[in-house]
Amino acid sequence: MFKKILYPTDFSDVSKKALEFVKGLKEAGAEEVVILHIVDMRHFTGPDIGSALDLAMLEEAMENRAALEIEALEKELTKCGFTVKTRVEHGIPFREVLRIEEEEDVSITVIGSHGKSNLKEMFLGSVSEMVIRKAKKPVIVVKR
Amino acid sequence: MFKKILYPTDFSDVSKKALEFVKGLKEAGAEEVVILHIVDMRHFTGPDIGSALDLAMLEEAMENRAALEIEALEKELTKCGFTVKTRVEHGIPFREVLRIEEEEDVSITVIGSHGKSNLKEMFLGSVSEMVIRKAKKPVIVVKR
Repeated sequence: MFKKILYPTDFSDVSKKALEFVKGLKEAGAEEVVILHIVDMRHFTGPDIGSALDLAMLEEAMENRAALEIEALEKELTKCGFTVKTRVEHGIPFREVLRIEEEEDVSITVIGSHGKSNLKEMFLGSVSEMVIRKAKKPVIVVKR
Repeated sequence: MFKKILYPTDFSDVSKKALEFVKGLKEAGAEEVVILHIVDMRHFTGPDIGSALDLAMLEEAMENRAALEIEALEKELTKCGFTVKTRVEHGIPFREVLRIEEEEDVSITVIGSHGKSNLKEMFLGSVSEMVIRKAKKPVIVVKR
């Protein structure tokens, strides 16, 4: 029921709270965690943004930062006894989460209610909302 | 983290799937389950409906049916080793779920993505959506 967990993260504080839930599922039979981060470059395209070279450098910097964060998460979960797989994908976050949910055939997804870019006023972040609506398997929503 | 679970149910098939999740959390440290059912009379008020007496009889019949269903759920969860509390409330379902979530100070809510009255075409039922949005604590959404 909780065997293989999908844990999408944008490294926000709510994502960190969700991580505690992932750990808590170990005793309920969770064995494997897929840590997923999506590099979303949509905010950086438009007339104001510099050259394609700048964009490529920015994307590389984001990937490098993500790699460091994910490495730390991987260590933390491995120490808890999980088998850990990490994935960094590019695209529209909710679509990637749903795609990986199916591709990895996970048992459950554990997600924070809000991402980094979500407004304080929103009750639910847009990525989380779409994931909850369209996920095939159960979703644990951890609130901020 | 999973110590005290709120399990709202309208006795639908998805609610039954959610019950399996509740059971699965036993190994993760869950101890107590609050089974909650809400008698919602809103659909039965209006000019087409009969007398106040008919309504009172209908409400009583719904309560009696709920009591039977809840008793069966209580037995099932007790057998799994949970301490079980049952509540039948009257009102608007999502408001009652949120009120009881706070009043009972639960650790987590386990809810089906759809209730009995929700359309097949909807990705998420209206009660579940409001509960996910406004809950103070984490919510496990079990999909149909």
